[in-house]
Amino acid sequence: MNDLIDRLAAALGPGGVLTESADIAPFGTDWRGLYANSPRAVLRPRDADGVAASVRLCAEAGVAIVPQGGNTSLVAGAVPSRPGAEFVLSLARLNRVRAIDRAGLSMIAEAGVTLLRAQEEAAEAGALLPLSINSEGSAQLGGVLSTNAGGNNTLRFGNARDLILGLEVVLPDGTLWNGLRLLRKDNTGYALKHLFAGAEGTLGIITAAALKLYRAPRERQTCLCALPGIDAVLDLFARLRDEDESALYAFEYISGPAMALNARHMPDFRLPFAEPAAHYVLAELATTRRAASLRETLESVLAGALEHGTIADAAIAESETQRRDFWAIREHIAESQKREGTSVKNDVSVPIASVPDLLDRTRAMLTARYPGARMAAFGHIGDGNIHLNVIQPEGEEPGAFDGRAEDLMEDVNAIVAGLGGSFSAEHGVGMIKRPAFAHWRAAAERDAMRRIKDALDPRGIMNPGKLF
Amino acid sequence: MNDLIDRLAAALGPGGVLTESADIAPFGTDWRGLYANSPRAVLRPRDADGVAASVRLCAEAGVAIVPQGGNTSLVAGAVPSRPGAEFVLSLARLNRVRAIDRAGLSMIAEAGVTLLRAQEEAAEAGALLPLSINSEGSAQLGGVLSTNAGGNNTLRFGNARDLILGLEVVLPDGTLWNGLRLLRKDNTGYALKHLFAGAEGTLGIITAAALKLYRAPRERQTCLCALPGIDAVLDLFARLRDEDESALYAFEYISGPAMALNARHMPDFRLPFAEPAAHYVLAELATTRRAASLRETLESVLAGALEHGTIADAAIAESETQRRDFWAIREHIAESQKREGTSVKNDVSVPIASVPDLLDRTRAMLTARYPGARMAAFGHIGDGNIHLNVIQPEGEEPGAFDGRAEDLMEDVNAIVAGLGGSFSAEHGVGMIKRPAFAHWRAAAERDAMRRIKDALDPRGIMNPGKLF
Repeated sequence: MNDLIDRLAAALGPGGVLTESADIAPFGTDWRGLYANSPRAVLRPRDADGVAASVRLCAEAGVAIVPQGGNTSLVAGAVPSRPGAEFVLSLARLNRVRAIDRAGLSMIAEAGVTLLRAQEEAAEAGALLPLSINSEGSAQLGGVLSTNAGGNNTLRFGNARDLILGLEVVLPDGTLWNGLRLLRKDNTGYALKHLFAGAEGTLGIITAAALKLYRAPRERQTCLCALPGIDAVLDLFARLRDEDESALYAFEYISGPAMALNARHMPDFRLPFAEPAAHYVLAELATTRRAASLRETLESVLAGALEHGTIADAAIAESETQRRDFWAIREHIAESQKREGTSVKNDVSVPIASVPDLLDRTRAMLTARYPGARMAAFGHIGDGNIHLNVIQPEGEEPGAFDGRAEDLMEDVNAIVAGLGGSFSAEHGVGMIKRPAFAHWRAAAERDAMRRIKDALDPRGIMNPGKLF
Repeated sequence: MNDLIDRLAAALGPGGVLTESADIAPFGTDWRGLYANSPRAVLRPRDADGVAASVRLCAEAGVAIVPQGGNTSLVAGAVPSRPGAEFVLSLARLNRVRAIDRAGLSMIAEAGVTLLRAQEEAAEAGALLPLSINSEGSAQLGGVLSTNAGGNNTLRFGNARDLILGLEVVLPDGTLWNGLRLLRKDNTGYALKHLFAGAEGTLGIITAAALKLYRAPRERQTCLCALPGIDAVLDLFARLRDEDESALYAFEYISGPAMALNARHMPDFRLPFAEPAAHYVLAELATTRRAASLRETLESVLAGALEHGTIADAAIAESETQRRDFWAIREHIAESQKREGTSVKNDVSVPIASVPDLLDRTRAMLTARYPGARMAAFGHIGDGNIHLNVIQPEGEEPGAFDGRAEDLMEDVNAIVAGLGGSFSAEHGVGMIKRPAFAHWRAAAERDAMRRIKDALDPRGIMNPGKLF
């Protein structure tokens, strides 16, 4: 092992290998603090060739590699599965935006570029990288693509995979594959880019990506609405979608209990409504049209919805500051839940028409089996994706609820499965959802995936303990 | 073999197995008439269980299966690779649309449903299945998805794969995998659906698909434009995209020589222009907005383009009939080229900014190496996808040009590769582009694909001779 570390240090140059326990411990702790598996060493290559050299040397030695970007996984997908035995390979130093093509609407960026920086560089070129997630300030592109991140604009632009034109990937034997093709159409064999996207680093390491950009919108309108019932939420969605499908960039849901936790824990929390409501929606319309009139469109839809009783109240952002305030409410929910104590995260999806059933059945299940537990749902309801989080009973000792988390997740997953849904809409499988993956996906499906894993990574060195 | 056929006949029931040579010969001939490899038998299961039973029995016997839908492949992807040795499995009797969900905007349909019927059933439900290709009247969904078909609306809605929510697939051992999830988000392991999409039947047989639908547009405007130069074509594209990106559903290119062949061979051919032009564009704008004013938008963009000299002339369709007339011109090109004699089909893509270089370099290469050969380019230029077809020299004996087709394709492919492009944008690889695939794709990429193929189809019975 020390021989290997010496060879890696020689290959990666100064600062390329960390072995001091104080330096490497943070790389073994996941964002939620559920795992603390310190790596044997941390590799910090500067470029794709350095990644390739690292993987080649590790492959020869049969040592496992855990690729890590911003380490923001919510399912413990980017930390070692065992303490002291695996190498974390940090992509943080691969942080170049290699090219932006404004006319062709594309960008080539390396794995260690944060999503926020990629968005900003696109914006500077007058374009839009339409992928936005809560952790975008620290999440890096390699991880964002390897987990097929979703987020706020999936409704309009799809998941991370839908933005990929091409990838550069270091394969499990250390071969560097340059698939950075800037093509909108390319039917030449299996869709390897779609295989690496969402593979959670188990098939290779994405070192750079060619991404689709879109034109930056010329007008944007954002509203926060208070609604009396979940059916009204779906009705508002249908009204907005019916009016102008392509302008509906985001349609986000916040349940009354999730909002109440914000009221308790969010600094400077303020709602633009006189009364609290049972449900809230944050909707954003945008368009690249000149001479657009989204404001009128939105006002007209909201007026109709108000008259019909679909919404109880609504506020349209009057400024960019107010728009940011609305989004801050949406984005603070996870933090508010964290402050409230133990929260069991269920990132599930169902066909959107089944969302009311999902909420009703989960509420009934919780009442019967977890008395006092509080359902604080929110999420990307336009995609049928609900973060069906369950907060510990009020006043209970922090941590007391932990032991029941796995049972509770499986109880929720059973309801989700009954509605034809998924136990992981956008967070992936990682280590945390492995039991659900084994339980809820058909043997034929898992077997096909396992065969692919074994075919591409026969030594099993790529991010072991994740997915399988 | 006769034992196997008896067992298959028993499993599939009346009409399930064809063995008479007159019946089965058409299944061995590809659409372009380049191959005539009669199958040993044709299997015609009625449903997915019948497909599964067929594959299971063939797998046990080690007999190769060629899945076939409408048999419209342009690269000989759906006929046997050898005469008399392989079974064609026709999906034609799996022709049920199982469900349409208008509110959820989805459809579940079987592999044997033609694309046209799927479009029509979606339209009847007030929705849009935004995939449109020339052969849609006979092409069936299974083939459309297995080849990741592109077509006229890819610019706005993506390729076939982008419409797939879930798939039902019979795996190479005969296992039926039900992956028909109606979910917009589902991050639970490798993207198998994206692997089967575009795999050309080499990894299993798609028996049904859950597809995304969109809202039907409320307004549609179509124009045919005459342009003086290829740079002007790109300028018009930029103008329209800049005006209203989400409304640009199609931007199709027809070169002057391609149009001239239409003038020669298309019945009732009529152009709405006084003078022939060097280049033509067929553009279509559409929107789901109420109170839209695409007509004004289009008129304003065209007026600006006319003033600037970008276009020489333009006609906006004044009726649905005229719109269909414009599209008929675009759709008749392949037929006109067929009537003119031998045409070498190059379905290539490059980044759109490189299209002028592609055309210039190809023209120069043809002049130097294939004197008299006529470049008759057309295609989905908005995607950077050009059908860079080359017609035999005028007056030459039909067929004389055939012997040079492979050299010519490779000469074009070399130019395409030099521009970072693809030798097959939307037609796939099949048998015809296997040499190009072997030549122009990196060893690492082909090796990864080969490993996947061997892992999922270890007996090598699924559509042999295609891709690899």
